[in-house]
Amino acid sequence: MKMVEIISTELIMTNLLINKALQESIADYFKEDDLSRNLNYIQSLPSDEVQCRLKIKDDMILCGLPYFVESFNYLGANLKYEDFKKYEGRQYQKDEMAEIHFTLPFSIALTGERIALNLIQRASSIATYTNKFAVMAKGSGVKILDTRKTLPGYRALEKYAVVTGGGNNHRFGQSDMWMVKDNHKSFFGGVKEAIDFFKSKNSFYTPIEVEIHDLSELKLALNEGVKHIMLDNFSPDEIREAVKEKPSDVTFEVSGGVRLNTLENYLIEGVDAISIGALTYDAPAVDLSLKYSRG
Amino acid sequence: MKMVEIISTELIMTNLLINKALQESIADYFKEDDLSRNLNYIQSLPSDEVQCRLKIKDDMILCGLPYFVESFNYLGANLKYEDFKKYEGRQYQKDEMAEIHFTLPFSIALTGERIALNLIQRASSIATYTNKFAVMAKGSGVKILDTRKTLPGYRALEKYAVVTGGGNNHRFGQSDMWMVKDNHKSFFGGVKEAIDFFKSKNSFYTPIEVEIHDLSELKLALNEGVKHIMLDNFSPDEIREAVKEKPSDVTFEVSGGVRLNTLENYLIEGVDAISIGALTYDAPAVDLSLKYSRG
Amino acid sequence: MKMVEIISTELIMTNLLINKALQESIADYFKEDDLSRNLNYIQSLPSDEVQCRLKIKDDMILCGLPYFVESFNYLGANLKYEDFKKYEGRQYQKDEMAEIHFTLPFSIALTGERIALNLIQRASSIATYTNKFAVMAKGSGVKILDTRKTLPGYRALEKYAVVTGGGNNHRFGQSDMWMVKDNHKSFFGGVKEAIDFFKSKNSFYTPIEVEIHDLSELKLALNEGVKHIMLDNFSPDEIREAVKEKPSDVTFEVSGGVRLNTLENYLIEGVDAISIGALTYDAPAVDLSLKYSRG
Amino acid sequence: MKMVEIISTELIMTNLLINKALQESIADYFKEDDLSRNLNYIQSLPSDEVQCRLKIKDDMILCGLPYFVESFNYLGANLKYEDFKKYEGRQYQKDEMAEIHFTLPFSIALTGERIALNLIQRASSIATYTNKFAVMAKGSGVKILDTRKTLPGYRALEKYAVVTGGGNNHRFGQSDMWMVKDNHKSFFGGVKEAIDFFKSKNSFYTPIEVEIHDLSELKLALNEGVKHIMLDNFSPDEIREAVKEKPSDVTFEVSGGVRLNTLENYLIEGVDAISIGALTYDAPAVDLSLKYSRG
Amino acid sequence: MKMVEIISTELIMTNLLINKALQESIADYFKEDDLSRNLNYIQSLPSDEVQCRLKIKDDMILCGLPYFVESFNYLGANLKYEDFKKYEGRQYQKDEMAEIHFTLPFSIALTGERIALNLIQRASSIATYTNKFAVMAKGSGVKILDTRKTLPGYRALEKYAVVTGGGNNHRFGQSDMWMVKDNHKSFFGGVKEAIDFFKSKNSFYTPIEVEIHDLSELKLALNEGVKHIMLDNFSPDEIREAVKEKPSDVTFEVSGGVRLNTLENYLIEGVDAISIGALTYDAPAVDLSLKYSRG
Amino acid sequence: MKMVEIISTELIMTNLLINKALQESIADYFKEDDLSRNLNYIQSLPSDEVQCRLKIKDDMILCGLPYFVESFNYLGANLKYEDFKKYEGRQYQKDEMAEIHFTLPFSIALTGERIALNLIQRASSIATYTNKFAVMAKGSGVKILDTRKTLPGYRALEKYAVVTGGGNNHRFGQSDMWMVKDNHKSFFGGVKEAIDFFKSKNSFYTPIEVEIHDLSELKLALNEGVKHIMLDNFSPDEIREAVKEKPSDVTFEVSGGVRLNTLENYLIEGVDAISIGALTYDAPAVDLSLKYSRG
Repeated sequence: MKMVEIISTELIMTNLLINKALQESIADYFKEDDLSRNLNYIQSLPSDEVQCRLKIKDDMILCGLPYFVESFNYLGANLKYEDFKKYEGRQYQKDEMAEIHFTLPFSIALTGERIALNLIQRASSIATYTNKFAVMAKGSGVKILDTRKTLPGYRALEKYAVVTGGGNNHRFGQSDMWMVKDNHKSFFGGVKEAIDFFKSKNSFYTPIEVEIHDLSELKLALNEGVKHIMLDNFSPDEIREAVKEKPSDVTFEVSGGVRLNTLENYLIEGVDAISIGALTYDAPAVDLSLKYSRG
Repeated sequence: MKMVEIISTELIMTNLLINKALQESIADYFKEDDLSRNLNYIQSLPSDEVQCRLKIKDDMILCGLPYFVESFNYLGANLKYEDFKKYEGRQYQKDEMAEIHFTLPFSIALTGERIALNLIQRASSIATYTNKFAVMAKGSGVKILDTRKTLPGYRALEKYAVVTGGGNNHRFGQSDMWMVKDNHKSFFGGVKEAIDFFKSKNSFYTPIEVEIHDLSELKLALNEGVKHIMLDNFSPDEIREAVKEKPSDVTFEVSGGVRLNTLENYLIEGVDAISIGALTYDAPAVDLSLKYSRG
Repeated sequence: MKMVEIISTELIMTNLLINKALQESIADYFKEDDLSRNLNYIQSLPSDEVQCRLKIKDDMILCGLPYFVESFNYLGANLKYEDFKKYEGRQYQKDEMAEIHFTLPFSIALTGERIALNLIQRASSIATYTNKFAVMAKGSGVKILDTRKTLPGYRALEKYAVVTGGGNNHRFGQSDMWMVKDNHKSFFGGVKEAIDFFKSKNSFYTPIEVEIHDLSELKLALNEGVKHIMLDNFSPDEIREAVKEKPSDVTFEVSGGVRLNTLENYLIEGVDAISIGALTYDAPAVDLSLKYSRG
Repeated sequence: MKMVEIISTELIMTNLLINKALQESIADYFKEDDLSRNLNYIQSLPSDEVQCRLKIKDDMILCGLPYFVESFNYLGANLKYEDFKKYEGRQYQKDEMAEIHFTLPFSIALTGERIALNLIQRASSIATYTNKFAVMAKGSGVKILDTRKTLPGYRALEKYAVVTGGGNNHRFGQSDMWMVKDNHKSFFGGVKEAIDFFKSKNSFYTPIEVEIHDLSELKLALNEGVKHIMLDNFSPDEIREAVKEKPSDVTFEVSGGVRLNTLENYLIEGVDAISIGALTYDAPAVDLSLKYSRG
Repeated sequence: MKMVEIISTELIMTNLLINKALQESIADYFKEDDLSRNLNYIQSLPSDEVQCRLKIKDDMILCGLPYFVESFNYLGANLKYEDFKKYEGRQYQKDEMAEIHFTLPFSIALTGERIALNLIQRASSIATYTNKFAVMAKGSGVKILDTRKTLPGYRALEKYAVVTGGGNNHRFGQSDMWMVKDNHKSFFGGVKEAIDFFKSKNSFYTPIEVEIHDLSELKLALNEGVKHIMLDNFSPDEIREAVKEKPSDVTFEVSGGVRLNTLENYLIEGVDAISIGALTYDAPAVDLSLKYSRG
Repeated sequence: MKMVEIISTELIMTNLLINKALQESIADYFKEDDLSRNLNYIQSLPSDEVQCRLKIKDDMILCGLPYFVESFNYLGANLKYEDFKKYEGRQYQKDEMAEIHFTLPFSIALTGERIALNLIQRASSIATYTNKFAVMAKGSGVKILDTRKTLPGYRALEKYAVVTGGGNNHRFGQSDMWMVKDNHKSFFGGVKEAIDFFKSKNSFYTPIEVEIHDLSELKLALNEGVKHIMLDNFSPDEIREAVKEKPSDVTFEVSGGVRLNTLENYLIEGVDAISIGALTYDAPAVDLSLKYSRG
């Protein structure tokens, strides 16, 4: 097992709060998987201790260990996240054949493994995919952002995985940032009218971002004092034009169909961030498995 | 918009029950996306009617319209699923540029679109990917099965999408089928001992399937009267060997790393089904969008 | 307190998972009984330790101790189910005047006793009643099955009690076994049509059982490859006729109004199981009480 | 179908509120029975209209129609409780072979019937059993009371059934009446000390009832101003003695093992009420069924 | 920090039950405050221990420490309520500058402080305001009662605070006492008719209180055997008239616009209680704060 | 009923979404008030129509009609919010004796009135109190802000009321704005270190505000690029000093003990906003009542 430098935030972990933060979702997951359906079965599972090995079978940024640990702890295990946190966010190579070892009662290993693995696989896939973008953008000054195109119910996990992979979070919900999009502009009758609608909401500190499609819209937005501009589906050349009009206290976010093989073309000076929905909805799966046996 | 024959079950749809079946999940999704956070905003959205166009932007089996419809209906819209059901499960080509048209109040279109799209995208991706396997297996007599490696909280949607794409469902939870796996065998001390454990659960009709790794295990399982055998990580040649020992009233399921480009090698006479976790956890995303504007 | 041999599965208990499996229901029960209504009262109950005696006042199979223990533990007690499990599933005689002793804080004993007793009484009543059938059927090769006629919200407890009493579980919900009943046959237009409906659901391993009313229906079902037949309201003589047509790989379940005093007539060779709704909805109550006092 | 006079309150029904009151429980019941588990199945059920007949197959007080109606309405049916309310609380004889007719979509009839029937059977069983006691006590001036020995989660249904059968409700939870029992007396050190504990709760209007075991305790309780006395396990002769000491503004409740065949002995002048736990936990089941077919 | 004698019940506290009683509400509060929204943030908060000082910055009856303690414990802290209970219900003067000291992990202090403070401020405000009334009424034999005009969701906390401040609780919900009000009388057609409606509910022990507006209504109510009378908006002189008609076994409650500066006029012999909605909906805020820093 | 100009946002109301946004809270409130406790009572309430009059008995900004309407609609009423919205946010004088008229079934009026009134009273109290500050600040260019010191569970209602009264909303939860407070600075070891902690969270658009206590801290924060400064407990003179250092693209928020009678002193040029916790936790109650009777 060899450690490799990765692009990621420094994570100072604790499991005091994270358990509570995850608990409700995990309770729902076990209900879905029949925890309370057949009590005769569930209560008859032996609780002898087994040796567990989480096997990392792909190149990946490992992510989601808080979910992994809490899945078993929810069932009554007593894993310490502190023992796992040094692996969270690390980069692994498939041929390291890395493993994380721990022990669990058989009953809990068996009941919890599928959910624990499904969650960590999802988080690691997203962190790994994000990391590819982040590595490529490194040094360019451009941040890689997620979007609100997360799977419903999974926003917290997916946005956590994006940061673990070296990306940045865009807004978390409909109301912590006002985004003026095409649908707003057409409905309210223009850029200014749409901005006015949001200003009338009296949310003093809520940032406003305006999605623009050409330079005339950019001008309209800047005139309204907007500080965050999204260049929607701009080509690299159009972006370079737009950047010339960029005031120093304004951020530019590029959006629309940027993929791994085209990213480089968009790493243009003056662009602050690129948002990529595919980070969360199209990350290729990475492979992990859990094996256990009597000590 | 051209219709193409697809491999899928005949779906006789009704939205009487499906709304209730989906309602609780969808309520959670809107909570995640801030429905109740900023009332001043949410109650001030105009409810003027807008013309909506769901745009199908990729080759795909369209799937998830019950979720799409219920996402808006949950917010107070009154879409009739009956009007949509003729599109559910259909195959579309990207260059048809197919669209589904309907109307909504602006407030509901805006608030619901992200969740509605995220759900239908997930379901369509899985149906589309499953369909590729199902088309290839067509005529071979081998069924394509999903697994329990679904995303926690999404088992119902994902298994529904698999069937829509022409696949079959494996068990739905830990307790509607007993599966004897490696971990059981090693813990209980053998194939027979593991089977005995499940038999002692007194679930009279619950089927038992045994995962085997060689022909000697196959013999042990058949001796115990097991009717469902999973050949785990068998090569095509090994499968051909195993099939020779197959009694007429027993089913054989192949499992382990079968992918689109290797599927053909596993479509062997005597194999009843192939289970493929990637159907649900690694289906590539398909693209859909929603546009709307005042009439 | 004298132990008596009983008909029951060997139960290897653990309280690691069972607490989680029961927790949500028990939380609801305490809400119903005003746990959060009068805080001034609830927080002023002294927590001095009291000696508790669970008194077994009837002939019974004691069942439901996981619920009993978890009722108090939910409130903050720290009872070990391991200390109780040796009593679970045992047969007691009224004149043994058996008692189980343990200690609790007064506040928890007082708040929890009613719910703990109500639950254990329900489970023990069902286990006891089931056991009468199971004892009578012992040696005949016929299993005693429960039904889906459980009290809504109590399916898990009631099916657990049936197994504890020596019975077997029929299906757990609407979808882990397909049952073709009269209503299906009449609606879909025949036995074959109803079976086809369920086959089209693509649930590969879900067993199908067909309820039949005469031998011609039996033939139709067998022709469709059905492996599980329910003989509905057949007389013993009719059952004997049907058994003559029974293939070796098919199970026969007798159903309809079998009671304790007629059971013997139905223990016919070739019958695999008899399902009896009254096991769960008409089990006569058995008596238990809890007394406690300062040490 | 013949109507018979019964002992019951006059019920002026409306389904405006009752739906909301029942809704949450019924949602839980359908989850238990797999409503959201197999979407492919649930959404493919045809919604053609079927003719339904609720068949009353025993002597009974029919009770629970609000639950019956709401079970189907929860799924999307549109039954009017107003059409059913004339049957609620009526007495039926088995040989009337009474039926209640209505129509439902097939999908809803099939999905809802088991839960609807299980609920109405439970309520009718309790109403019927209570009614036997109430008829016997009629004219004696003694009320028949339930207890808190209801099945957890079913207190509302069971206490409703008791009133429908002609009985009266005792308290609804731990905190709408203070009951001083043996456990309190022994813990706090006496009748007076236990009463003082509850008085210190400052619940101005909450009634206090004291359970007494002999005449000296009666005196102690009356001295403390207690207005409600429970004579616990008193023989009829002891009750007659106690009644002589009864002040005019005090109620006497008899409790402890009174059954149908001994009730008459306890209908003593001066006794205001007899509480009987068995009304709810030991009511023998009554039989109902639902048949339906295409019109 | 100096202790002052206050008017309050003797509180024998324990945190065994109170945690469970509060848990569900507190879980909701943390969800509202984003506990599960940004996992990257929440799991990165350092858990180093900090010294905390709860500062009491106003004259007040301190109330709500069970909520305060449970807010932090919910997040994973391990505060013992036993260490805090000696401060609950005490009277503090602003110039004492009293402080309560304890330690917490930084992550929990930071995440929990706002909710913990908001709750204790609400409870202390109500206890403090109630206490002003209770002190004034002391010795008069008149109890100070709250009403059902509590903030929805806060009834338990607010009624607890009223008792802590020396007041008494009126009913806890719509159904633990029947109150006959103007709306009932006008709807049912008179005092007697309204009383009859409630008597027909067969809730044997549920007290009935009748709100009266003149002496003729008083007579009607007493004739029906009513034991609890509410004099609604009676002037002190009218009250004195009413008291003359008061039977010895009846309670009189005065209601309607009594405030601190007019209370004295209503402390009339024969009045048992005065109910004051403002205790809970108009208590002026008292000031508390929490400071913490590394040891 | 006379209309008066008020300071408030233009509210374009619709009840399509707002019902869903409020529904879950209101369900909890009715549970607290015994909706499902006594079914015999709740289902026997007559549903005859009654004429209702909401009486406005104080000077106030009326606020909370969405809650008022939804409280009754939750129970089955069919009030149209569109009919009420013209009254939402209006200013009323006590001596207008304004009333809003509508009809309801008696059962719903009776069951819903207490909760409906409690909610509208809370919202109107806060809107009214906020409006006093907003009127005074009008023309000064200074906005009036709420805080996170809302009652747990009531943040949405209270922040809605603040805007209705003419105020502005500060952040909605712990994570839609990073606030660097004393506790952070002391824990992390300085202004810069605390800011760095939040920057490392990778929430690209989340605004950062720093609470400062003197001009040297102001300098430190500005050097870090912070755009939002909170002047904590600054005197008017100190504020005037600070304003001199304010860059044009930075906002200044004054915080700490500003009350109605001192507000004027803080309306200083260069101050963008003043945040006042008392808007939500110390708004004096305003009086409303509901009367109804048969038509």
